[in-house]
Order: sequence, then structure tokens, then C-alpha cells
Amino acid sequence: MTLRIGVIGTGAIGEDHIRRITNTLSGAKIVAVTDVNVEQAKAVIKNQKLDAKLYESGHGLIQAKEVDVILVTSWGPTHEEFVLAAIAAGKPVFCEKPLATTAEGCARIVESEVKHGKRLVQVGFMRRYDKGYYALKDVVTAGKIGEPLIVHCAHRNPVVGDNYTTDMAITDTMIHEIDVLRWLLDDDYVSVQVVYPRKTQKASSHLRDPQIILIETAKGIRVDVEVFVNCQFGYDIQCEVVGETGIARLPEPANVLMRSEAKRSVEILTDWKKRFIESYDIELQGFIDAVNQGQPNGPSAWDGYAAAVTADACVKAQQTGEIVPVTMKQRPAFYNK
Amino acid sequence: MTLRIGVIGTGAIGEDHIRRITNTLSGAKIVAVTDVNVEQAKAVIKNQKLDAKLYESGHGLIQAKEVDVILVTSWGPTHEEFVLAAIAAGKPVFCEKPLATTAEGCARIVESEVKHGKRLVQVGFMRRYDKGYYALKDVVTAGKIGEPLIVHCAHRNPVVGDNYTTDMAITDTMIHEIDVLRWLLDDDYVSVQVVYPRKTQKASSHLRDPQIILIETAKGIRVDVEVFVNCQFGYDIQCEVVGETGIARLPEPANVLMRSEAKRSVEILTDWKKRFIESYDIELQGFIDAVNQGQPNGPSAWDGYAAAVTADACVKAQQTGEIVPVTMKQRPAFYNK
Amino acid sequence: MTLRIGVIGTGAIGEDHIRRITNTLSGAKIVAVTDVNVEQAKAVIKNQKLDAKLYESGHGLIQAKEVDVILVTSWGPTHEEFVLAAIAAGKPVFCEKPLATTAEGCARIVESEVKHGKRLVQVGFMRRYDKGYYALKDVVTAGKIGEPLIVHCAHRNPVVGDNYTTDMAITDTMIHEIDVLRWLLDDDYVSVQVVYPRKTQKASSHLRDPQIILIETAKGIRVDVEVFVNCQFGYDIQCEVVGETGIARLPEPANVLMRSEAKRSVEILTDWKKRFIESYDIELQGFIDAVNQGQPNGPSAWDGYAAAVTADACVKAQQTGEIVPVTMKQRPAFYNK
Amino acid sequence: MTLRIGVIGTGAIGEDHIRRITNTLSGAKIVAVTDVNVEQAKAVIKNQKLDAKLYESGHGLIQAKEVDVILVTSWGPTHEEFVLAAIAAGKPVFCEKPLATTAEGCARIVESEVKHGKRLVQVGFMRRYDKGYYALKDVVTAGKIGEPLIVHCAHRNPVVGDNYTTDMAITDTMIHEIDVLRWLLDDDYVSVQVVYPRKTQKASSHLRDPQIILIETAKGIRVDVEVFVNCQFGYDIQCEVVGETGIARLPEPANVLMRSEAKRSVEILTDWKKRFIESYDIELQGFIDAVNQGQPNGPSAWDGYAAAVTADACVKAQQTGEIVPVTMKQRPAFYNK
Ligand SMILES: NC(=O)c1ccc[n+]([C@@H]2O[C@H](COP(=O)([O-])OP(=O)(O)OC[C@H]3O[C@@H](n4cnc5c(N)ncnc54)[C@H](O)[C@@H]3O)[C@@H](O)[C@H]2O)c1
Ligand SMILES: NC(=O)c1ccc[n+]([C@@H]2O[C@H](COP(=O)([O-])OP(=O)(O)OC[C@H]3O[C@@H](n4cnc5c(N)ncnc54)[C@H](O)[C@@H]3O)[C@@H](O)[C@H]2O)c1
Ligand SMILES: NC(=O)c1ccc[n+]([C@@H]2O[C@H](COP(=O)([O-])OP(=O)(O)OC[C@H]3O[C@@H](n4cnc5c(N)ncnc54)[C@H](O)[C@@H]3O)[C@@H](O)[C@H]2O)c1
Ligand SMILES: NC(=O)c1ccc[n+]([C@@H]2O[C@H](COP(=O)([O-])OP(=O)(O)OC[C@H]3O[C@@H](n4cnc5c(N)ncnc54)[C@H](O)[C@@H]3O)[C@@H](O)[C@H]2O)c1
Repeated sequence: MTLRIGVIGTGAIGEDHIRRITNTLSGAKIVAVTDVNVEQAKAVIKNQKLDAKLYESGHGLIQAKEVDVILVTSWGPTHEEFVLAAIAAGKPVFCEKPLATTAEGCARIVESEVKHGKRLVQVGFMRRYDKGYYALKDVVTAGKIGEPLIVHCAHRNPVVGDNYTTDMAITDTMIHEIDVLRWLLDDDYVSVQVVYPRKTQKASSHLRDPQIILIETAKGIRVDVEVFVNCQFGYDIQCEVVGETGIARLPEPANVLMRSEAKRSVEILTDWKKRFIESYDIELQGFIDAVNQGQPNGPSAWDGYAAAVTADACVKAQQTGEIVPVTMKQRPAFYNK
Repeated sequence: MTLRIGVIGTGAIGEDHIRRITNTLSGAKIVAVTDVNVEQAKAVIKNQKLDAKLYESGHGLIQAKEVDVILVTSWGPTHEEFVLAAIAAGKPVFCEKPLATTAEGCARIVESEVKHGKRLVQVGFMRRYDKGYYALKDVVTAGKIGEPLIVHCAHRNPVVGDNYTTDMAITDTMIHEIDVLRWLLDDDYVSVQVVYPRKTQKASSHLRDPQIILIETAKGIRVDVEVFVNCQFGYDIQCEVVGETGIARLPEPANVLMRSEAKRSVEILTDWKKRFIESYDIELQGFIDAVNQGQPNGPSAWDGYAAAVTADACVKAQQTGEIVPVTMKQRPAFYNK
Repeated sequence: MTLRIGVIGTGAIGEDHIRRITNTLSGAKIVAVTDVNVEQAKAVIKNQKLDAKLYESGHGLIQAKEVDVILVTSWGPTHEEFVLAAIAAGKPVFCEKPLATTAEGCARIVESEVKHGKRLVQVGFMRRYDKGYYALKDVVTAGKIGEPLIVHCAHRNPVVGDNYTTDMAITDTMIHEIDVLRWLLDDDYVSVQVVYPRKTQKASSHLRDPQIILIETAKGIRVDVEVFVNCQFGYDIQCEVVGETGIARLPEPANVLMRSEAKRSVEILTDWKKRFIESYDIELQGFIDAVNQGQPNGPSAWDGYAAAVTADACVKAQQTGEIVPVTMKQRPAFYNK
Repeated sequence: MTLRIGVIGTGAIGEDHIRRITNTLSGAKIVAVTDVNVEQAKAVIKNQKLDAKLYESGHGLIQAKEVDVILVTSWGPTHEEFVLAAIAAGKPVFCEKPLATTAEGCARIVESEVKHGKRLVQVGFMRRYDKGYYALKDVVTAGKIGEPLIVHCAHRNPVVGDNYTTDMAITDTMIHEIDVLRWLLDDDYVSVQVVYPRKTQKASSHLRDPQIILIETAKGIRVDVEVFVNCQFGYDIQCEVVGETGIARLPEPANVLMRSEAKRSVEILTDWKKRFIESYDIELQGFIDAVNQGQPNGPSAWDGYAAAVTADACVKAQQTGEIVPVTMKQRPAFYNK
């Protein structure tokens, strides 16, 4: 069956998801779109050659008969209301991160979905679909390095704009590590701490950059994440799991090995969009296939909630310099696998 | 428009292509299949949940109204007649390698396609669609290593069966290097030589293994290809281009870096099917998109002919120990880009 | 001039230094030895074919006319008295680490050397003589990565004995990072913190293993050192300096790259003695040459003191879980370069 | 016992060997020097602060009572006469490569040494003392890759002067591979062939560059050596041994791994002098120690002869384009190990 998808928000990632559903993936098509910027929505219909109806609002689109599934790619602050409406309508919904901008908002979605009684929501944490992380999880789960004890990570960006603030290092940047490491380790976080190294002169005056976030998990694993968003040299994602008998490291993206100008070298990507580009395809194809077979099975509303609670704790740790506990509600049995 | 594809030969790769067109790719569907082994065809219809008509013969399928495009994945010796029939019917045809089992057969297809006046044929040389080779060609074409002078290659297989013969090192194994290097270098071959290193004890008594094939191109580039099909350790494809100012090497597949048991290590694939698995998707999606936009633009009948002529020369070089010229007909202007 | 060296303590490293001075290095010879275990000293004289006088005590050896230079390689708790005696005798002294077992002991040596008015003491921190660290310092000093901001380190041992205690992770193991990073960064430490990851089941019950030591420097650089002494897989020393414009990593020891058994792999050393084996030669040759030209120029008594103070703070941080300041006396101008 | 060494030829490598014997190595000292350029010899005595007698000729130096051992580092064409004179005087002699400029000259030395009845001669093929080659030989000899079948090599130089001629690619450059591979494989050569790839525009008009030399050994192993002396990018030595069960590759020199400017990179040396700099120390220390214990045990006069015969065959193969046999005399039992 071909899923009929309605898209709320046809901006950068919205258009990108529309393009991949239309040209690359199989099993779904775009039948409806909406955007507060109507011109933007019209342009996307035209550029992507869609045979899709333009809706005036997200709510109208969610109610529409011909729409089976909702894709929420509008601005973060609008996500909660659209996801709640989709649940109310009993329609599966793929929501780009963040699920909601507050932990409370996420909790409301969790509650609503639990009440509905069946999974409808998937959150756009695409790193879980990256082949590298997947291979890393395979190694860990297979016990090839024994029990994991420590994880060393880095999330490095060449440069950020002046409007990037210190807390965005958590909410926009490290949020991906927050989700993917919970999944990788099959664990939960209990406390976080943030330390500030010497500041780079390349960052704007108001921004603490780099930062190191120290996390402890329920199993006692220690995670350290270096977030460095003006590192200049490239978009560089590192993840190394130290286990009882060995260490496994996230693969570097494959690239041509050069010998030239007195160097052996391999190019590092500078554009973050290319780093996980294939995982978006796998993520959405997985969502489509899972919905076709019953219900979504990717990152859940609970995962969105857990990420939000952890991010809040990290921001508090940034501000206080303290070790801050990560306190979550009881996980509804609904979300146990 | 959704292309309606008919498949001749539903064996290993036939079923695989059917699966990817049905579940993974976009813009085409399988509407007809045939196989001399009718049970095999029925099983594939069932397993892949196809809504496809079963034909008694390839020729019937080719003539069928509801079939727009032909996929030939039967045994090699049957390819020529089906490709010729598809051309006669004016239908685009994707033919797994080899295009035909003789250079003469390939020449007949070339002639027939030229007479038809428009490209219809694409040959299944999927390495051109591998991201690694693609990145390597990018580096070379961009002039990052100057003019290419030498190419060092290796094509290694862990082990082959007893029915694998010395000439199959050319016709089944090195055939992929033959095609991909012509494309990579944008060049033609002028002579070949084969030398036999000390034989591995792991090969069957009738098989010369390893072999080294030495090739000279029209531009004077020297290529050496080590073919070693009982190397034991893995499926290992190497390609290094030495240019006037630098060297570029085909990326190794990305994989987890392990530290364990007194080794830093990265797994090497042992199953050839996994090595280029993504390139099959890209190859067929590219074929579908190109046909939808007018005509195929991948490896042409001429490329299939060039590969066949070169393979013949290599086999002669195996047998004689001589330096054997590679003599091709004049390339029809039709195939110039 | 050939330096005439007297050795106090002919145990493992004592004999090793004797061997290298006798057979490998140039410009010095062993003329006197002593050990509380007289048989041990006699055996070394015999095995190393020394033409050396056996002394009854370290003090007698230090006073001896024919001895120009003292090498202290006895047990740690005896170092202080022999170094003080050598200074009193005005003789250059190379003392294996630790300079003294307490910060106060080190301070007494510093004071005594300052009073003497000329450098006599060198401490056996051999990592500064490792080519890898040397190359890393070169890169950092040359500004190739901009100002250093963060240093990520790991010090991993395959396994330790049952008598290895939690504090030895600092005093025996991380002591080398403590010294080499001060030198690498040309900086001083201001505070330390220790966090304990989930404990490996491979460690003895009384030992916290692994540990992570977090250090802040005067310039604000943040250092994290993973100490993991039962990591099973090998002796593995990592050091990565993150700077404002790039990252530089300590070279892995060069070794044969293997392709075998479905792996590309490079051996990791398991015996720590081999990891820095060349640096011992360079260290001692450097000491001999410097003494011949006037006075030692390697790690000074002040460096020994700084290491001791830092190690004390780390041990306190282990015990309290607090962030512990590193408080040093004022550096005597004597030790400025 | 301290060996008393006399040096004939105090040019570049002569002075370098003098320096290492004097300052770095142990067990020998320079007591006599000579050079046709007397000023040069005087300068070296002064710069290296030697307590050495200046001789008028090599022959006088060889006869001198106080000289135990001869070091021949004069120009190649003078080596034969000095080595023969040293044998006549019954003195051990270390002769820089080449042993003699002709195979006949080498044969005369072999004959003379055999007649003398005890090994006196060692040839300066220092690669055998490189730790990388040594580790590679270890792997091969230990059977870790099974029987060797193929060796792929490259010898690349950034650039050569205008006086570098096509045959020097053999006699000056590949001569090191010729020796070290015989040793690595414990094998002899039976035939050679040379093919010329497309010529780089960076080479002078009279020079064929790059070249590929194809060698067959007595055991049937096939060796290919790419010699490329204007490769621009660096001094790059590659050696990969393909065995029945795996592949082993000569280590790249250890160096700092950088992340900067959108690249992961490791520096490649450009100065050949640095590439094997440590092996000169080990080579000469080995010679000194072996002579002290009886007789030299490094590359023998027979090895010098074998290299000369092979080089002659390669030069003939360059000129004729033919497969040229490598024909050696019967190896005197004297040189069996
Ligand atoms: N998973 C990832 O890697 C990833 C990457 C990029 C963006 N995102 C997330 O996707 C979301 C969108 O990001 P973007 O980069 O596409 O932003 P964008 O600004 O390019 O696009 C957002 C679009 O939503 C529209 N919109 C806003 N409010 C709306 C509403 N109430 N109804 C309908 N349309 C509305 C805007 O007009 C705009 O066209 C953000 O939440 C972002 O965090 C995730
Ligand atoms: N590009 C690649 O990497 C690649 C990989 C595998 C196979 N191939 C090529 O694909 C072709 C098929 O290989 P395979 O491994 O799938 O073989 P296979 O034996 O598994 O399948 C071939 C199928 O064709 C059927 N068949 C044979 N003659 C037929 C005819 N006249 N009409 C209809 N059906 C017929 C057979 O019954 C069989 O089911 C071969 O030419 C092979 O070289 C290419
Ligand atoms: N820099 C390094 O990497 C490194 C490596 C190994 C050891 N060390 C240091 O070297 C020192 C010795 O270590 P080791 O492994 O050789 O120990 P060891 O036990 O093998 O040898 C010490 C020797 O000193 C002798 N000795 C003890 N007290 C003495 C005294 N008062 N007078 C004379 N001799 C005395 C002992 O009898 C013994 O033979 C230690 O301080 C150790 O920390 C440094
Ligand atoms: N193993 C290696 O890697 C390596 C490296 C460099 C040189 N070499 C070899 O070492 C030899 C010398 O090379 P170099 O670079 O030092 O050359 P050089 O020209 O710098 O030095 C040679 C010296 O020998 C002197 N000399 C020439 N004829 C003499 C004679 N009859 N008696 C006394 N002195 C004489 C010259 O005056 C000159 O000072 C050559 O054979 C060269 O191939 C080997």
C-alpha cells in the first residue's frame, strides 16, 4: 500500500524529506502540504513536481481524509501541538527533532500516546540509522569489547553563526549524542556535568566554545562529549566505546586516500548535511515500512522526552557548574520493547 | 511515470533486482517475469509479493504491450538474443554482464543499436556506481594528482570452487576492472600481458592463482591488476592511481576500528555481494531515471563490446605468455559523449 | 671526556641503564655499583662484563673519587637521601622517578639544589624523549593547530597484579602523563578531579579501574586522562591535543599492516617496556652529553616536585570525589629557562 | 675492545659515519682518515673534533699498524681497489654501496675473500637494518602470511637533478630494493623486465620516469617495483608482500596525525636521508659488534655481487624491452649461512 503523507512545514528539511519520499524511497507519496509561508509551500509543490493539495493550516491537513500519515517539519515550537493533533486523529506522525521544546511538552505527548494505546509517534533522531553507529552498536551488543565502561565522543563543527548561544551546544548540537548514546548503550542517564576548557578565539564573545559534557549512566558508564562548534577544520563526529576487553570506534566516513604535497591525507567533510545524508533515507524508509506493517518502531515519544529531560539537565549544569541529576518520570510499560 | 519492467531470468541476481525495484527504488515496478525454470519464477512472484504476469518465454515478455522496459538477468549465453529482441522491439533493456559471451555477439548488438538510432542498452557494470570509485574519478578528473601514469589494482577473493578455471580470472573476475578502469581513465586499452607468480597451494590443481595482468592504454598509462581468488583473508578490491603530482587510492569500506587482542583492526568483508551492494541500487535507480528522461546513460553496448574484446586479448595472453594487442573496431560516433 | 658513572640500585631498570651506557651509548662508562642486595650487584657486574668497583653503600659510592656522576635506580623511598647526598657532593645525579616519594621530599631537593647554585639533578621522565611526543610538541609549538584548548589522553595497560592499588593509578601510572603534559603544553596545573566509570570485572576487588582524571591548567586548558590498567588488549598510550584550528595526535608506534583472517590489523604492544624503549637511550645520552657540556638540561628537580604535588592532589581527588586545587610553591627563578 | 677505524673518503656519508661512530655508537673510534681532497679531510677532523691521523692515501691508511678496521666511503669507482687491499691486509672492511661498479669487480672481491678464508667484507645496504623491513621479515618468516607469492614495491623520490639518467633508476635507486628483497624473501632472482608507463612531464627530457621493473625469483615469486623519481609529493617507500594466507605491508614512518583544513593527514618525508636514518646507526653498531666478536655478519661481498649482476640485467632490460635472465656464478659454500 502506498502511504499518503501530509507535510507540515516545507522549509529546508521539509523539502528535503519531500524530495526523498518522492524520488528515492518507495511505498509513500506526498498528497498534502502546508506552511505558514504559503509561497514557500507553493514553490515546493512546483519544484518537486508534486501532485499534492495545499492546506491552509496544519490542523486542516491533519484532519484531511486523504492524508494517512503526518510529517512535522515546521519550527520546533510548533511541533507539540501538531503531534498532539495527529495522535488525537489516530494518525502516525513523524516529527523532526525536537519532539517538543520542553520536557513537559514531551511528557504531554507521551501521556496522550499511552492513552491512545498504540505507538503513532516517531522522532527524527536519524543517527540511529547511520551505518557507522549501527555497526558500532552491533560490535557492542555482540559482546566483542565486553561490557561498555566509558564512551569518549566529540561533536565538532567548523563554525557557527553569531546567533548560536552557549545552550544551543546542548539543545541543537549535543542533542544527537544524547539520543544516540542512550540507544547505543541501552541505558539511561543519571547525572551530568559541564566543564569549560580555555575558550577559542574563533568563537563570538558571548559563546563558551568548546565545552565538555560529562555524563553518568544508570549502569555507571561514564560518557564525555567534547562539543566544539568553531573547530575550523571540519564537521567531525567521534565516538569511541571503551569496554572491558577492547575498544570500538565509530568509522570515519570512507574517502579517497591521497598522497600529495608531502602528506597522506583523507578529506574531512565540512558540511554537516553530507555526514548523515544516507541515514535520512534509511530512517524515513524504515518509518514508512513500519507504519505499513502496523506502527512506527524508530525513536519514540519516550525517547524524545528522555532527550528533553537530559538536555534540560545539561543546560542547568552549564549554568551552575554543578553535577546535576537527570530525573525522569517512570517509563510507561508501553515503551518497553 | 512508473516504468513497467519485465524480467527475464529470476535467479540470484534477478530476484535481487526485483526486490530492490519493488521495495527500495522509486519510479518502476515489476509487471512481468519469465524463467526457463518456471517454479523458480513462481516462487519469486510469491516471495516478493509481485503483481506480475508470468510469461512462457523471454521473447513473449519482450513483445508484451504492458512491458515498457526489459531486465535481462538470465545466464550469460542467452543475453545476446534477448538484448537483440529488445532492440528490435524498441524497448530499453538493462542487461547484466556479460552483454554477450563473444566480442562478435557484442558487435552485433552495437550494430543493431546504432541502426536503431537511439540508445536502448545498458550493461550491468555496477562498479561505476560505487561511491568509492566515483570519488576516485572525481579526484583524478579534477586534476588533483595531475595526469594519471600508472594504476595498481588488486581483485582478491577468499576462495573459489573447483569449477573455477584459469580464464575465469579474466572473464568473471577481472572483467569488472576492465570496465571500470576504462571509465575511470577515460582511455582505451592497446595491449595486455599476463604473468603467473608462484602458485598458491590453496588453489585447485588446474587453476593458475594468483595472476598478474599488465595492461597498456592508448595514453600510455600502465595498469597492473593482481587477481588472486584464493587469498583466504577476504574480498579485497584495491585501486591506486599514480599521477604526475600525487597518488589517489580507492577508499576501503568504512568499518568499526577495534582495539582488542593486541591488535588495532578493521574487518575486511569476505562476501563479495556486500562490497558493492549500494552500487546496485544506484545503478538501477540511475537506469530508471534516465529511461524516464529519454534513454539510458550508463555503461553502453559499446562498453560491453570493449570489455569483451579486452577479455579475449587477456585470455590469449594467459595462454601464450605474449604481449597481445587489443584490437577494436572503430567506435561509432553514436557512442561519443 | 668519558663520564665515570656510579650506579645505586642494580635491579631491573638499573641493570638496563648499565647495559645501555656500556653497549649502546657513547661518552660514559660504569665504574662503580652498589645494591643492598649484594648478590644482585655482583651478578650485574658479571653479566654486563663491567670493570666496576662494588661499593657497600650508596653513600660510599657517592663520595668515591673515581665517580663523576651518580645514577639512582634503587627503590623510590631511598631516592631522596641519595639525591641530597649527590648534591652535597656537588655531583650530577640522574634519578629515576620518583624524585622523592613526597612533595616535601622533592621540595627539600629543590631547595638544596638552588642553594648549590647550579643544576645537578635530572629526573627519569623519559617520555619527553619519545620521538612521538617530541613530534607532537613540535606541531603544537609551531602553531599548526593554534592555541591548545583540550587534551584527551589514555594510559592503558593489559593487566596489573593484585598488589596494584587505586592510588597507584596516579603515582605509578599517570605520573608520566602528569610530567609530559606540563612539558608539552608549557603550562602548570591548577585543579584536578577524578571520576570513576563502571568498574571492569577484570580488576581485583579492591581496585577502582578504570578511572578518569580531569585536570585544569593555568591557561585554562582541560585535560582528561583515562587510566585503565586492566584493559586486556594491550599497552596503549593515546594523546590528542585539540587546538583552535586543528587537532594533533600522538603517533601510534609504526608496525606492519596485515591483511589476514578477514581483518586489516596492526599489532598493539602488550609490554610497556617496549613502548618507550628508544626514549631511554635518548634520555640518557642527552644527560651524558649535557653533563659533559656543563649541567643537565632534562626534567629538573622542580619538574619532579611539580609532579609530586600534582600526584598528591590527584590522590586526594580520588578519595574525596572533589575538585582539588593543585597548590605549588613559587617557582625559584633558578628553574626558569 | 675499542675498534680503531680508518676512513677512506670523508665526503657526505663518510663524515656522517664518522660522526655516528664518534658520538652515538659504542665500541669503536676513528683513528685515521684520508681523502683525495685533503682540505675536506682536515675540515672533518676539525669539525668532528677527531683525534685521528691524516693519511695521504687509502693504501697507506689500510697498511697502518694502528688501524684495525677500514671504512670505505669514497666514490664508487674507487671501492674495489680499497676493498681488495683491505682483504690483502686481512682487515675487516665496511664498504658503502656499491661494492664495485661492475659485476666482475664484485666477483674479484668475492674470490679474494673466499681465498682469504674468513669473512672480512660488509656492504652498506642499510635497509636490512630498518626496523620496518625487519618487522616485515619477521612476519614473513614466522609464516603469518603463508608462503610469499608476490611483492609489490614502490620507490618514489620527490625530484631528481638533470644529471640523473634512466639507468640510475636501477643502479642508484632500485639497487636498495634489489638487495633488501633478496634478503627479505631469502631467494634469488632469475629474470627481469622493465616497462615504461606514460612519462611524467616533470622529468627532464632524457629521463624515462616512472619505470616499472618486473622480477621473477627462483621460487617463482613475482616482484614489481615502481620507480618514480619525480613524484613530487615525497620520499615514499612501499613494500607489500602477498602470501598464501595474508598480506603484510612495510610500516609507514610513525608521525603525528593531524586534523586540520578539512583533512586528516600525516606528513610524508621529503628528504630521503631521514627515512632510514636510524638504520645507519644499527647497521654500523652491528658491524662493530660483529667484528669485535669475530667477523662481519651483515650484507656480504656475495650480496654485493648479486646486486651488481641483477642491476646489470635490469639495465639491459631497460635498453632492450626484453625479459632478461639474471645469471650468477655458483655461490661459494663460504657464503652459506
Ligand atoms: N534531524 C536533523 O538532523 C534535523 C536537521 C535539520 C532540521 N531539523 C529540525 O527540523 C525542523 C525544521 O528545520 P528547518 O531547518 O527545515 O527550518 P526551516 O526554517 O528551513 O523550515 C521550517 C518551515 O516551517 C514553517 N513553519 C513554521 N511554523 C509553521 C506552522 N505553524 N505551520 C506550518 N508551517 C510552519 C516555516 O515557514 C518554514 O518554512 C526544526 O525543528 C529542526 O530542529 C532536524
Ligand atoms: N554485475 C554483477 O556483479 C553480477 C553479479 C551476479 C551475476 N551477474 C550476472 O547475472 C547473470 C545471472 O547470474 P545469476 O547469478 O543470477 O545466475 P542464476 O543461475 O542464479 O540465475 C539465472 C536464471 O536465469 C534463468 N534462465 C536461464 N536461461 C534462461 C532463458 N533462456 N530464459 C529465461 N530464464 C533463463 C535460470 O533458470 C536462472 O533462474 C549472469 O550473466 C551473471 O554474470 C552479474
Ligand atoms: N622511568 C621509567 O619508566 C621507570 C621504569 C621502571 C622503574 N622506574 C623506577 O626505577 C626505580 C627502580 O625500579 P626497578 O623496577 O628497577 O625496581 P627493582 O626492585 O627491580 O630494583 C631496585 C633495586 O634497588 C635496590 N635497592 C633498594 N634499596 C637500596 C638502597 N638503599 N641502596 C642500594 N640499592 C637499593 C634493590 O635491592 C633492587 O635491586 C623505581 O623508583 C621505579 O619507579 C622507572
Ligand atoms: N647506503 C646509502 O644509503 C648511501 C648513501 C649515500 C652515499 N652512499 C655511497 O657512499 C659513497 C660516497 O657517497 P657520498 O655521497 O659521500 O659522496 P661524496 O662525493 O660526498 O664523498 C665522497 C668523498 O670521497 C672522496 N674520494 C674520492 N675518491 C677518493 C680516493 N681515491 N681516496 C680517498 N678519497 C676519495 C671525495 O673527495 C669525497 O670527499 C658512494 O659510493 C655512494 O653510493 C651510500
